[in-house]
Amino acid sequence: DDLWLHDVAGKSARRLTHDSDEEEVPTFSPDGTRVAFVRKNDLFVLQVATGVETRLTQSGTEHVYNGKLDWVYEEELANRRSGRSYEWAPDSSAIVFLRLDENRVPSSPILNFLPVHGTVREQRYPKAGDPNAIPSVHLVDLTTGRTTSIAFNPDDLYVAPEFSWTADGTSACFLTLNRAQTELTVQLLARTGGTKTLLTEKDPHWINSIEPPRFLKDGSGFLLLSERSGFLHLYRFGMDGKLTNAVTQGRWLIHRSPELDEKAGLVYLVGTEQDPREQHVYRVRLDGSGFTRLTKEAGTHSLDLSPDGSLFIDSFSDSATPPRIALSRADGTRVALLDEPVNALAEFRLGKTELGSFTGKDGTLFYTRLLKPADFDPGKKYPVVVFVYGGPHAQVVKNSWGVSSLLDEVMASKGYLVWSMDNRGSWGRGHAFETPLAGRTGKVELADQLEGIAHLKKQAFVDPARIGLWGWSYGGYLTLYAATHAGETFKCAVAGAPVTDWKYYDTIYTERYLKTPKENAAGYEDSAPLTSAGKLGTRLLIIHGTADDNVHMQNSMAFVDALMRAGKDFTFVPLPGQKHGPRDPAARLYSNRRILEFFEKNL
Amino acid sequence: DDLWLHDVAGKSARRLTHDSDEEEVPTFSPDGTRVAFVRKNDLFVLQVATGVETRLTQSGTEHVYNGKLDWVYEEELANRRSGRSYEWAPDSSAIVFLRLDENRVPSSPILNFLPVHGTVREQRYPKAGDPNAIPSVHLVDLTTGRTTSIAFNPDDLYVAPEFSWTADGTSACFLTLNRAQTELTVQLLARTGGTKTLLTEKDPHWINSIEPPRFLKDGSGFLLLSERSGFLHLYRFGMDGKLTNAVTQGRWLIHRSPELDEKAGLVYLVGTEQDPREQHVYRVRLDGSGFTRLTKEAGTHSLDLSPDGSLFIDSFSDSATPPRIALSRADGTRVALLDEPVNALAEFRLGKTELGSFTGKDGTLFYTRLLKPADFDPGKKYPVVVFVYGGPHAQVVKNSWGVSSLLDEVMASKGYLVWSMDNRGSWGRGHAFETPLAGRTGKVELADQLEGIAHLKKQAFVDPARIGLWGWSYGGYLTLYAATHAGETFKCAVAGAPVTDWKYYDTIYTERYLKTPKENAAGYEDSAPLTSAGKLGTRLLIIHGTADDNVHMQNSMAFVDALMRAGKDFTFVPLPGQKHGPRDPAARLYSNRRILEFFEKNL
Repeated sequence: DDLWLHDVAGKSARRLTHDSDEEEVPTFSPDGTRVAFVRKNDLFVLQVATGVETRLTQSGTEHVYNGKLDWVYEEELANRRSGRSYEWAPDSSAIVFLRLDENRVPSSPILNFLPVHGTVREQRYPKAGDPNAIPSVHLVDLTTGRTTSIAFNPDDLYVAPEFSWTADGTSACFLTLNRAQTELTVQLLARTGGTKTLLTEKDPHWINSIEPPRFLKDGSGFLLLSERSGFLHLYRFGMDGKLTNAVTQGRWLIHRSPELDEKAGLVYLVGTEQDPREQHVYRVRLDGSGFTRLTKEAGTHSLDLSPDGSLFIDSFSDSATPPRIALSRADGTRVALLDEPVNALAEFRLGKTELGSFTGKDGTLFYTRLLKPADFDPGKKYPVVVFVYGGPHAQVVKNSWGVSSLLDEVMASKGYLVWSMDNRGSWGRGHAFETPLAGRTGKVELADQLEGIAHLKKQAFVDPARIGLWGWSYGGYLTLYAATHAGETFKCAVAGAPVTDWKYYDTIYTERYLKTPKENAAGYEDSAPLTSAGKLGTRLLIIHGTADDNVHMQNSMAFVDALMRAGKDFTFVPLPGQKHGPRDPAARLYSNRRILEFFEKNL
Repeated sequence: DDLWLHDVAGKSARRLTHDSDEEEVPTFSPDGTRVAFVRKNDLFVLQVATGVETRLTQSGTEHVYNGKLDWVYEEELANRRSGRSYEWAPDSSAIVFLRLDENRVPSSPILNFLPVHGTVREQRYPKAGDPNAIPSVHLVDLTTGRTTSIAFNPDDLYVAPEFSWTADGTSACFLTLNRAQTELTVQLLARTGGTKTLLTEKDPHWINSIEPPRFLKDGSGFLLLSERSGFLHLYRFGMDGKLTNAVTQGRWLIHRSPELDEKAGLVYLVGTEQDPREQHVYRVRLDGSGFTRLTKEAGTHSLDLSPDGSLFIDSFSDSATPPRIALSRADGTRVALLDEPVNALAEFRLGKTELGSFTGKDGTLFYTRLLKPADFDPGKKYPVVVFVYGGPHAQVVKNSWGVSSLLDEVMASKGYLVWSMDNRGSWGRGHAFETPLAGRTGKVELADQLEGIAHLKKQAFVDPARIGLWGWSYGGYLTLYAATHAGETFKCAVAGAPVTDWKYYDTIYTERYLKTPKENAAGYEDSAPLTSAGKLGTRLLIIHGTADDNVHMQNSMAFVDALMRAGKDFTFVPLPGQKHGPRDPAARLYSNRRILEFFEKNL
């Protein structure tokens, strides 16, 4: 699509670009006079008043990206999903951007079976241990036309996709992460050339936060999110990189990039201080004082601060209530409920989602979620569908609308309990809760899930002989791991788009937890359901999109091959042309129907 | 592998070629002084005495074949499976060969999922309507080194893979078939250049036999197989191409290339004169007189005539008896039973295969096969597994050992009857029995099968409510056609490696029966189970090798996609890395086990 300029009423339009089928991630300069965009992997700037384009890079090819991310960066490092990797200077006179050269990255084929001759997409996809794209950082001064570039040696490292600028606009800030993802360096690149390291952070396991610092307008320093305390908090630093003070602290964590009212010296943020299953809006002074919760309703709140810092929009929900949108003053007092959305599901008798917890044998507190049918009768014995995800950076136990999916609700309406828990490895509980899976996945997650299921089975209304398991992606992985290591616990299991051996998955995600296959051969071997396919101990359904470019279908094919050689039975449902999450409504419906039917038949 | 020369005792060896990983189809010259072979698609001749190689062609590339067939020629036109396409002159002084340039043939991708990065093989495979390889014929005179070549205009025709030579060695003989396969031309190419047409044959539907003529040593003419009477028989022609006489005739057909004792003027052949389900050895004089059957035992005989014509080896079996090998005199009197092989299955209680027949409503006689369990009790009601193939050039009802497969026997041992019939379209009954499927496959075959099943259901020992269906390849195709057009007849169905739309299958096979998709769009549409996937009316298991380079897995993927969109249930078993027939013992076993389990569960 070409770029068009509309006035805010949408009435008049001016076509800014012509005949370009690859306009991507356009962004206005702060002063609104220019638009930056990427066309065919080159970065352009267009002057709004004249429509004159300036091409900032010439190196863009199919496999060299300027200002745009490659597949693995976008999937594993980017917070925003736009794929954009450039940032305007505050005075609109310069741009800093990332270049990625993925020519050395091996490709994996993805086959489209349906055309008469079939077609293959060769996707550049670095698998664990493979070479990654070569990153470099470039700063273009639009007034002088001069480009300052930083290449890295060794080039086997990551550059964070997002950049920021110092308040005076003289330097851009970029972050690098070593390949092992244990060391983060925050650096400045001056417009005039030359770099300066602001600070470095190390973690024995891995570093999660690579958001760029936010430089304060008064030039006094910057704010940075860091997990240095074991929980993600906000810190204030001087321009010399020395810590001024922690803005937030405690055994809870910040969920999203904070917002700032610099004039008033106030930070607004969303965090888990109240409960790891909830998200509330908080306000705190830059010096760390005056920490106050601004939202009241139990559940999950979001934050959108007005430009002058006087108001914020709070969209909130809980497991029983669809999102409502409120306008609040900066101190949390409510101005108005802006929207009371119609609950589209009101005509259905939904089940009841109960959030709970239990304490594991070693004293760890685990959170759980249980969906009961609308007509739940505590005197009856119910079969249970256990839904797992279990992998890093995700929580399945949250007090928010939709935490029980529509498929969960259909299952409940058919008389199943749907149960989930967040095992160690999950997000929301701090770094020490995540890192037990370092070097070896599957084992800790499964142990926790089994403890949870033992706890669940003690409930009088649970039929302990009828426990089913299912999950997608990492949840598919963990389902296969469970089916091959504790198959006797489950009457049946459904794995969607599972990883079956981490050697098939990408560098950035996989090595973060397991290092490379060379460094940790035994860890890969032990973590792979593929290794233990012969021990499959339950009835199994596997579903996989044939065009999955995230978890390649080879994962399921290899597992099916191993099952076949072990003489084990399985049901496999290919979703032709579907990617990691089936988008096509027919495929989604079919996939859900097959999952449901499988449980109905086997549970 | 390299070529080695061994003496007949195998004791001494001389390496004739070095470091060539593509030695193919080596053939001694008639005088034994030379060996011809193909290396990297170029034709070579090697002098045995000196080991000196002569390279006859320079044009060989990945996609230009000299003396060797491309995929579709070897699959669809070749009688011998060696892929060889050259022939020595009788005096060993020249070679005639076929060149195929497949550069214009589109390719189809075949994915190997199991390597970490996956791999793709791009197979040159002309799908119905696609351009074929460009053929040309070349004659190399080894004494002069001169090559005489024939190109064709238009080049959209086929050259038969096999050649012959006139008795005096002055001309090679080649056959061309127009793309519609309705017109065969037999031509001579003189060593000195120039061609001459010996004869042409036309058929309103298609021509089956493209074996080269056999030139008689006395120079009087040649013998040629032809279906001109509606049945495949042998004819004698003069060198002017004029018919001398029919050597054989009648409402039966010759099964294999006849053998010849020219001195005695006798032809030895295998044919169906006795019964279409049997094969006997016959002898006849070149003038057509003295036609005599030489084998007695009911069943299937083969023929291997001694060089002097005094004896032949006869390997014979019937549905209850494994092959025995006998040495017989040329008049059929037996010299000795050479071999009475041990029946490796003697320890099992096999079922009983009964060959039968019934007359269809229109008076057509159909042959049937019924396998009954060893402990068959006529007072019981049995479920029936119907095994179909149903396509051209095959018979499933034959009085020969192995006609009931081991899988059939396992099914019988589990208490199933296994039943089959040869519907119209099958081989062995003459051209008019085959051609009803011209322009539209599926319909006639299914109608006949349904008539057969109606006949079967009348048997008191058949449970009419428990009929299952299965087949592989064309049998998989017909299974899907039946499951979508007469699903109510079957409790369940299993389709292995099915064609689901002929647009996905190759030129030579498909167009022979359906013409091109452009010429017969409605025929393709109506013949495709894919068109009618939404009408699936029985429980379905589909099995397909992911590396099938004959019936590409896209067939099953497209069908699965259509079923999904129609909300129809299916079970799909991919056989990772397997081709059209699973060769890997683990895959064969698994496939058979799944077929059996599917019938046990659903029938």
